[in-house]
Amino acid sequence: MKIRDVEMTAFCDIISERAEKANHEYAEGRGKVFKDYRELLKEDLDAVCVLTPNISHAPISIDALKAGKHVMCEKPMAKNYAEARAMLDARDKSGKLLTIGYQNRYRPDSLFLKEECDNGVLGNIYFAKATAIRRRAVPTWGVFLDEEKQGGGPLIDIGTHALDLTLFMMNNYEPAYAVGTVYHKLNKDKKTGNAWGDWDPKKFTVEDSAFGFIVMKNGATIILQSSWALNTTEVREAVTTLSGTKAGADMPQAGSLTINGIKNGKQYVLTPDLKAGGVAFYDGAAVKDSDLEAQTFAKAIQGKGKLYVQPEEAAVVTRILEGIYDSAKTGKPHYFN
Amino acid sequence: MKIRDVEMTAFCDIISERAEKANHEYAEGRGKVFKDYRELLKEDLDAVCVLTPNISHAPISIDALKAGKHVMCEKPMAKNYAEARAMLDARDKSGKLLTIGYQNRYRPDSLFLKEECDNGVLGNIYFAKATAIRRRAVPTWGVFLDEEKQGGGPLIDIGTHALDLTLFMMNNYEPAYAVGTVYHKLNKDKKTGNAWGDWDPKKFTVEDSAFGFIVMKNGATIILQSSWALNTTEVREAVTTLSGTKAGADMPQAGSLTINGIKNGKQYVLTPDLKAGGVAFYDGAAVKDSDLEAQTFAKAIQGKGKLYVQPEEAAVVTRILEGIYDSAKTGKPHYFN
Amino acid sequence: MKIRDVEMTAFCDIISERAEKANHEYAEGRGKVFKDYRELLKEDLDAVCVLTPNISHAPISIDALKAGKHVMCEKPMAKNYAEARAMLDARDKSGKLLTIGYQNRYRPDSLFLKEECDNGVLGNIYFAKATAIRRRAVPTWGVFLDEEKQGGGPLIDIGTHALDLTLFMMNNYEPAYAVGTVYHKLNKDKKTGNAWGDWDPKKFTVEDSAFGFIVMKNGATIILQSSWALNTTEVREAVTTLSGTKAGADMPQAGSLTINGIKNGKQYVLTPDLKAGGVAFYDGAAVKDSDLEAQTFAKAIQGKGKLYVQPEEAAVVTRILEGIYDSAKTGKPHYFN
Amino acid sequence: MKIRDVEMTAFCDIISERAEKANHEYAEGRGKVFKDYRELLKEDLDAVCVLTPNISHAPISIDALKAGKHVMCEKPMAKNYAEARAMLDARDKSGKLLTIGYQNRYRPDSLFLKEECDNGVLGNIYFAKATAIRRRAVPTWGVFLDEEKQGGGPLIDIGTHALDLTLFMMNNYEPAYAVGTVYHKLNKDKKTGNAWGDWDPKKFTVEDSAFGFIVMKNGATIILQSSWALNTTEVREAVTTLSGTKAGADMPQAGSLTINGIKNGKQYVLTPDLKAGGVAFYDGAAVKDSDLEAQTFAKAIQGKGKLYVQPEEAAVVTRILEGIYDSAKTGKPHYFN
Amino acid sequence: MKIRDVEMTAFCDIISERAEKANHEYAEGRGKVFKDYRELLKEDLDAVCVLTPNISHAPISIDALKAGKHVMCEKPMAKNYAEARAMLDARDKSGKLLTIGYQNRYRPDSLFLKEECDNGVLGNIYFAKATAIRRRAVPTWGVFLDEEKQGGGPLIDIGTHALDLTLFMMNNYEPAYAVGTVYHKLNKDKKTGNAWGDWDPKKFTVEDSAFGFIVMKNGATIILQSSWALNTTEVREAVTTLSGTKAGADMPQAGSLTINGIKNGKQYVLTPDLKAGGVAFYDGAAVKDSDLEAQTFAKAIQGKGKLYVQPEEAAVVTRILEGIYDSAKTGKPHYFN
Amino acid sequence: MKIRDVEMTAFCDIISERAEKANHEYAEGRGKVFKDYRELLKEDLDAVCVLTPNISHAPISIDALKAGKHVMCEKPMAKNYAEARAMLDARDKSGKLLTIGYQNRYRPDSLFLKEECDNGVLGNIYFAKATAIRRRAVPTWGVFLDEEKQGGGPLIDIGTHALDLTLFMMNNYEPAYAVGTVYHKLNKDKKTGNAWGDWDPKKFTVEDSAFGFIVMKNGATIILQSSWALNTTEVREAVTTLSGTKAGADMPQAGSLTINGIKNGKQYVLTPDLKAGGVAFYDGAAVKDSDLEAQTFAKAIQGKGKLYVQPEEAAVVTRILEGIYDSAKTGKPHYFN
Repeated sequence: MKIRDVEMTAFCDIISERAEKANHEYAEGRGKVFKDYRELLKEDLDAVCVLTPNISHAPISIDALKAGKHVMCEKPMAKNYAEARAMLDARDKSGKLLTIGYQNRYRPDSLFLKEECDNGVLGNIYFAKATAIRRRAVPTWGVFLDEEKQGGGPLIDIGTHALDLTLFMMNNYEPAYAVGTVYHKLNKDKKTGNAWGDWDPKKFTVEDSAFGFIVMKNGATIILQSSWALNTTEVREAVTTLSGTKAGADMPQAGSLTINGIKNGKQYVLTPDLKAGGVAFYDGAAVKDSDLEAQTFAKAIQGKGKLYVQPEEAAVVTRILEGIYDSAKTGKPHYFN
Repeated sequence: MKIRDVEMTAFCDIISERAEKANHEYAEGRGKVFKDYRELLKEDLDAVCVLTPNISHAPISIDALKAGKHVMCEKPMAKNYAEARAMLDARDKSGKLLTIGYQNRYRPDSLFLKEECDNGVLGNIYFAKATAIRRRAVPTWGVFLDEEKQGGGPLIDIGTHALDLTLFMMNNYEPAYAVGTVYHKLNKDKKTGNAWGDWDPKKFTVEDSAFGFIVMKNGATIILQSSWALNTTEVREAVTTLSGTKAGADMPQAGSLTINGIKNGKQYVLTPDLKAGGVAFYDGAAVKDSDLEAQTFAKAIQGKGKLYVQPEEAAVVTRILEGIYDSAKTGKPHYFN
Repeated sequence: MKIRDVEMTAFCDIISERAEKANHEYAEGRGKVFKDYRELLKEDLDAVCVLTPNISHAPISIDALKAGKHVMCEKPMAKNYAEARAMLDARDKSGKLLTIGYQNRYRPDSLFLKEECDNGVLGNIYFAKATAIRRRAVPTWGVFLDEEKQGGGPLIDIGTHALDLTLFMMNNYEPAYAVGTVYHKLNKDKKTGNAWGDWDPKKFTVEDSAFGFIVMKNGATIILQSSWALNTTEVREAVTTLSGTKAGADMPQAGSLTINGIKNGKQYVLTPDLKAGGVAFYDGAAVKDSDLEAQTFAKAIQGKGKLYVQPEEAAVVTRILEGIYDSAKTGKPHYFN
Repeated sequence: MKIRDVEMTAFCDIISERAEKANHEYAEGRGKVFKDYRELLKEDLDAVCVLTPNISHAPISIDALKAGKHVMCEKPMAKNYAEARAMLDARDKSGKLLTIGYQNRYRPDSLFLKEECDNGVLGNIYFAKATAIRRRAVPTWGVFLDEEKQGGGPLIDIGTHALDLTLFMMNNYEPAYAVGTVYHKLNKDKKTGNAWGDWDPKKFTVEDSAFGFIVMKNGATIILQSSWALNTTEVREAVTTLSGTKAGADMPQAGSLTINGIKNGKQYVLTPDLKAGGVAFYDGAAVKDSDLEAQTFAKAIQGKGKLYVQPEEAAVVTRILEGIYDSAKTGKPHYFN
Repeated sequence: MKIRDVEMTAFCDIISERAEKANHEYAEGRGKVFKDYRELLKEDLDAVCVLTPNISHAPISIDALKAGKHVMCEKPMAKNYAEARAMLDARDKSGKLLTIGYQNRYRPDSLFLKEECDNGVLGNIYFAKATAIRRRAVPTWGVFLDEEKQGGGPLIDIGTHALDLTLFMMNNYEPAYAVGTVYHKLNKDKKTGNAWGDWDPKKFTVEDSAFGFIVMKNGATIILQSSWALNTTEVREAVTTLSGTKAGADMPQAGSLTINGIKNGKQYVLTPDLKAGGVAFYDGAAVKDSDLEAQTFAKAIQGKGKLYVQPEEAAVVTRILEGIYDSAKTGKPHYFN
Repeated sequence: MKIRDVEMTAFCDIISERAEKANHEYAEGRGKVFKDYRELLKEDLDAVCVLTPNISHAPISIDALKAGKHVMCEKPMAKNYAEARAMLDARDKSGKLLTIGYQNRYRPDSLFLKEECDNGVLGNIYFAKATAIRRRAVPTWGVFLDEEKQGGGPLIDIGTHALDLTLFMMNNYEPAYAVGTVYHKLNKDKKTGNAWGDWDPKKFTVEDSAFGFIVMKNGATIILQSSWALNTTEVREAVTTLSGTKAGADMPQAGSLTINGIKNGKQYVLTPDLKAGGVAFYDGAAVKDSDLEAQTFAKAIQGKGKLYVQPEEAAVVTRILEGIYDSAKTGKPHYFN
């Protein structure tokens, strides 16, 4: 993640070479490099980005806020809702900004759809699907397969994006209850056809797929589907499908969007061209999603605009995911009261 | 429904003209016509088909069984599980055959998939979707919109087919619990774009969409989606999607089918040609689904084969649908124990 | 053309067999048959349909109006504007209804587009294309090729539909001037590849293609293209293309429609589903264009609604076509003062 | 524009940095750099390329010819026909070569079509369309939007290419008269969806679309359509469509081509593969359009071939465009005699 | 096969019901019916059609010619070349016409291609493929599977069409030698997926696929592929592919055609529209292949034109097929000296 | 060809610059460079790659083996079977490894298909097509067109790949006899449309297309088609098509694959996804074919695995191609015994 108009001056990793590499990639080697994040937090910095395994999102972010830094923390906000609330508390006490890295909100299709939702085009959204289904794309590097360090697999890793998009479009953060199921079915397979090469069955301790059914306080339903490995052809990731009283919306794939409804007594589909126009010899100019994310955070720090991802929203995502994991364990609904 | 190799000799409808019409269409006017089904049951008949509104499926079928007739009853088996059990009891006492009209099981794609499932090609099926989603296709004739006579709308009318197919393929009739939601959101609309013309908002008392999440005793999940009217482009009806430990299956639309899995370390899709082959000047020979259904019933009566739809299976479908309606009312799961 | 809810009781053709045939087809032989239309007009009839070659549209319609009949006359209204004005005069004096058979206005795409135009969705329409281009589809029967009887070829025969649709959507009947060109280039060809078999070069006296550029008093432009025979692959008939200040519309082929514009800073295309919805086993219910045309006329006669095609509008179509033919002859613009 | 086999030794721009940049890009910094083109013309150079705003095409080209240089001037040749004639005069007096940068003539589709036209495959071309329609692709940089500096918008900027291609294929440079319309309708819009970002409404003084109808002395018609911004889905640029007595030709998009006609009494379409063939691991060898343009000019200077774009032809393009602008102002045809 | 402008007055079949049925279908019951063809030949008839199993093509045709009738015999002409020559001898002695029912020559694609070949468009054709490949379309009725009655399977049944088309287009009837292979590999399969239902393995005595390589005296090669049942996706029947010195031709499927070659140094594909043109509401007029075949024969009898299928040509087809069967048996080439 | 994990230390070419260039490209200039390969063979090298014209494959490989080097020789193994056997003899005497560069075996489609064949999925393969058809892609550089140096054209250059793949999949190296034809038909053409520019007719002494029909000892048939220049649209290269008793396989183009057969009485097609899976933002990891080839050779030298291309197999390919050339010369079959 590059932040424009912003100087990156310090980098930290428990493996020094990685911090050095980042220093060269993002600061042409002029930054300082740390092995212990607590040392880094002593520096005179405006803001800190937390890009560590899920287990340390909360403690590092809280320490950073305590140290008086603004914080952008990668998604998911935390391993569970208690941690997420602790982060919000730290934010409140610090008076600093806290935001979460849900970069899919900055995609052109997401921006267009959010504008439609805010304009009331869809009416009251009462049914939605949050989808993050991969056929065989298990991330085999880093700690992704490690239950202890990550707190879960596809549900917490990519399901979190789909659910965040969905809640954001519905502008509905009041869940009533959730049920869920979580599977470890394909993690012992060999000759897997996996996008990143075969996984190590011994290390693959997180779930390979997880599903949930969430009922909101206003009666709306959200069906959540997530998988890294599943025998299916319905592969879509980081997308939401919405059905409202006035219109519906579908993202056939991340980056594309259609709106549907009834006009003059006829069913219609409206398809926006999400590229920036373009002519024969030119593809159009577009800001990259990740640059827009970084710019938005930088501007908010400078008081020039609002955060686009409020941590209170991200906390609800984490809360619901925790509810699904909980329901899968107990075989009962998890009530949010 | 025509039954081959079988003589149709009696017809009944509370509106006499309809019975007369059927007599001419199916028996060239040589059959007897009744207004009261109890009179018809006094005739010397082998079997009776029950094609009435849902509310009378159980009482008429039970009377027919008591009268010593074999019975084919339209889907859904009954308005609720209690009625369905009563039908099974009557069947047991009568020693006659009882079957339910789930004709989608006789489609070429269903037959092929069932054979694959029985051969173990999919392995253990742990995740499934039963889908019956229409955008605007509300049946405006007869009693379809009448809560009292039908017991529900799209869930009991077309969701029942999708769920039956799903359970049948999984060969799993042991539900643990279900949650569900039911909506009446578009039934007041005008200029509706409906396939069969605008509905009468006053008469439209059943739901327009309903959704459920079913957890089976063996841990498997079924997501059930049904609608007559919904703002969506994901329109599919009477289809199931299955994910097993060895392979998956998808019906892109009713009548088409793909199998997916991993072979030699590569993802594959297998597509059967469900037509009967064919050459340039010939489309191939095929038995129609409905003829196959009738033939199977007729043969079973003659002792030449088994029923393809066991009423015990249909009773479970009715039981689960009742659970979803119940959950939608209570806001809590419905446990089957 | 069948008229529902209306009894057809008299038929006329200078070739008696044709009138007899129509009598059997539309009145089961119970109607009266005439060879001279003046005799028919003495009958006690509410309305008359004029379906003769263009040359007799005006005289017969005027006689019918004088005889106190409502009149529906086939398109084009007349061979020239003077005749068209005479028809309007006769209509005014008679107090009866006069309408013209522009049935393409009743197509679902036309009805949808007209509703959008009336709602101001397109804004001010300042550029339009009226297109009626066939590659090789010269009507070789009847009097279509006869300059004397028809007054022209593709321009007056099919260009008239495209121009009528265009003016109707623009709701703009004030032309300033027109220029045009008319060609007789392929009418001597042999082995023509024509849809209805080779034409007779000797009889083919009308133009094979004609083009016009029309400037309206409010500054709008209409480009009119028409051909029965042209070396081209851009084949479309009875369609209009509109560019307005707020949105545009295109009919890729007669019967299909897209709306285009800008929304949330992005280009969009809106595609209505012009069929009546439909589910797997049902195509939806639709009124046929020609039935709708006849019903509308019958209702207007009964005072239950307005004519959908005002003869004043049709007169302007005829006026502009005359201007294009005139410009092609003189090599100068034809001004409508 | 790079010229092969040719040394580029001098560069000029009123903004020095740009000239310096070109010097480094095209001459590795070894060239001379000028701010005043009159100084450059004192150098010992064979040829000069004029790539300035339209307003200075004529004066600089004339000065260069007077200074004894061969000249390649960007399209359009000049702001008006009087200037173009002055350039021809200067060329005649100088004895040097003058050519105009219509590089679309060097595209593979253009080269193929020209060869067909020259071979008489199309016969006599009597109807043509010159098309340069963009939906929202207004060039927002430089002086493109400045009426004073450019003399117009899409008509003179891109319509000029489409018209040049059309006249060149027809080999017809004898216009009789033209009518036209010019619009400023969308230039005040905001959130424009423009390919190069929103324009500044205050600076956008040229037209946003323009249309013309041109009648040639031999009776042929050319319909010219051009836009930078128009509510339309019929987007094509730098293409021509031709209808001749023997065959037709269409460029679905710039770079592709089909020929159509009748053969053995059947309609046919002939599609050339305009790439250089190619096999699985190789895309074929092709000369780039712009290289071919430069090579042709360089060879002509060396006496090894003819110019491919004669300035007399370019002057007619400018003449016709002037006629269209004139007709739009007066509301009358512009006669060329 | 219906013959227009011709009265069918006598019908014969060894199963009387079939002859009766034909009498009603083609002669409204007014014809005479025979069980023994020798009786029929005593009637006063101009011409006779022979539609029997292959084994009796020659004897019946010869008897008919001896009886002074013109003869149209179904393809293949005979089971072997000796019989075919005997038929030619009988034809010569009788002075009557003999033709063979290769109706694929009358398809629009065949007619177009023949015209191109005759015009020399393809130049000298030196490589061709005759293709008649079905995946699973074994004709299970009649005597098709009976080696004794038919003389072979797909090679003599459908390969004969493909080879006839190929020789006819090449206008080359001088084979030098042929090699071939013949397979009985799938005829014992069950659950066959066959277009006409499963075959009876016991009765399936002919080959299921056969292949040949034919070298003509002028050095040209023909590859012949035929199958009723083969594990393949390259399914095409009754088509030829030609490569000549000037151009090539391909029939992607029976009824479609493309011509390919080089023009202006570019590869091109020419695609004729083989339908009769057509407009939005009309598909064009076309003579059916079989009607054209019958008309051509009837006209030839009346002296109004030539036979389109010369029996000498059909004899060469039979001769080559015999050669392939022979080569398959001996494992050596079959030389035609 | 790069060999990973292997140091390239010596390069040889009779044109020194080329050897120098390779030294810089593959060894960063640290290797030794030779003009005479005999000098190179005196170096202390483990293995040698022979990439010379076909004429020197055998002598250099034999010298290299004699010098105690492992050898990878480009395809075809040799100009004829006698040379190939001499290479095998040299290999046997040297005790070193010899392999041939048939890199198409390492493609993902080939690897998948080979695994299926080895698993018996196709059953007994009795019909196959080896296809290497280019339309106009004659290699105009080097010695490709030189009969003397190469021993032939497309048959020996690319037909060799298709035949090798076919035999390898069939695992059948026992040919009975072959017939063939060889053409020099288009080599005198001008304006050729060739992928690599027009050829020099004087230098083009090899064939432009060649075809063969090969019968194996077990009765199987292989049809071999090869061309560099042919008027055809059926362009495919380095592909095989297989028909077995249990299933079939087709490579629509090199790199893609489908398997076909019958399952549950229905025809099916199985399509493997030959890319390495992949998600939205990632294309999957794949080893390049050529790297896999080099790694396999390097591992075999190190005793870590088998050669994937046995020279005995390549010798049979050469033997069959020689048979086809021979048959084309004699007009008779070439028997292998």
